Amino acid sequence: MTKLENISMIKEANIYFDGKVNSRTIFLQDGSKQTLGVMQPGEYTFDTNEAEIMEMMSGELEIRLPGESEFKKLNTPESFNVPANSSFDLKIKTVTDYCCSYITD
Amino acid sequence: MTKLENISMIKEANIYFDGKVNSRTIFLQDGSKQTLGVMQPGEYTFDTNEAEIMEMMSGELEIRLPGESEFKKLNTPESFNVPANSSFDLKIKTVTDYCCSYITD
Repeated sequence: MTKLENISMIKEANIYFDGKVNSRTIFLQDGSKQTLGVMQPGEYTFDTNEAEIMEMMSGELEIRLPGESEFKKLNTPESFNVPANSSFDLKIKTVTDYCCSYITD
Repeated sequence: MTKLENISMIKEANIYFDGKVNSRTIFLQDGSKQTLGVMQPGEYTFDTNEAEIMEMMSGELEIRLPGESEFKKLNTPESFNVPANSSFDLKIKTVTDYCCSYITD
């Protein structure tokens, strides 16, 4: 269990795919943004603006990153990077708890 | 949109009912605990330890509080109180975003 100290948080949830994916946005002390969310089993396509680092805290999924033709299995603990202004496909196999960090230049 | 400042948060999610209900635990500056979560449509029974104040930030539900025989409809914005050491039943009609505060003596 990790405790994040001295953060701020947007109280309202971010809700996607009829709530099957939901997250809350936090800001760390240095001002950097993260979203912490839970994904239910299902298939989802996400678009990125900033580049992202996705850290899996629980769950199993398959991911197809931009430019790839095949899905690749990932089990917790695992992280993956997604380029800015792209999209990626996920097949969530078991409920997945994640922390997404954003890379701004 | 409400921003909660200078809080701490448990990074890992609380996952219930196969992820259909999930939340994260935060601690406000005065040390008081809240959980902020999202409930998917479905029927759920929750047990309480401490007394709770549930604030609905989005969604529609029906609730049956301890000792009541009928369900009662609630639409956002709405709050309800639940006694300590009890249980209550919810029928979530549309994805519900909530903030739960705990009342400790």
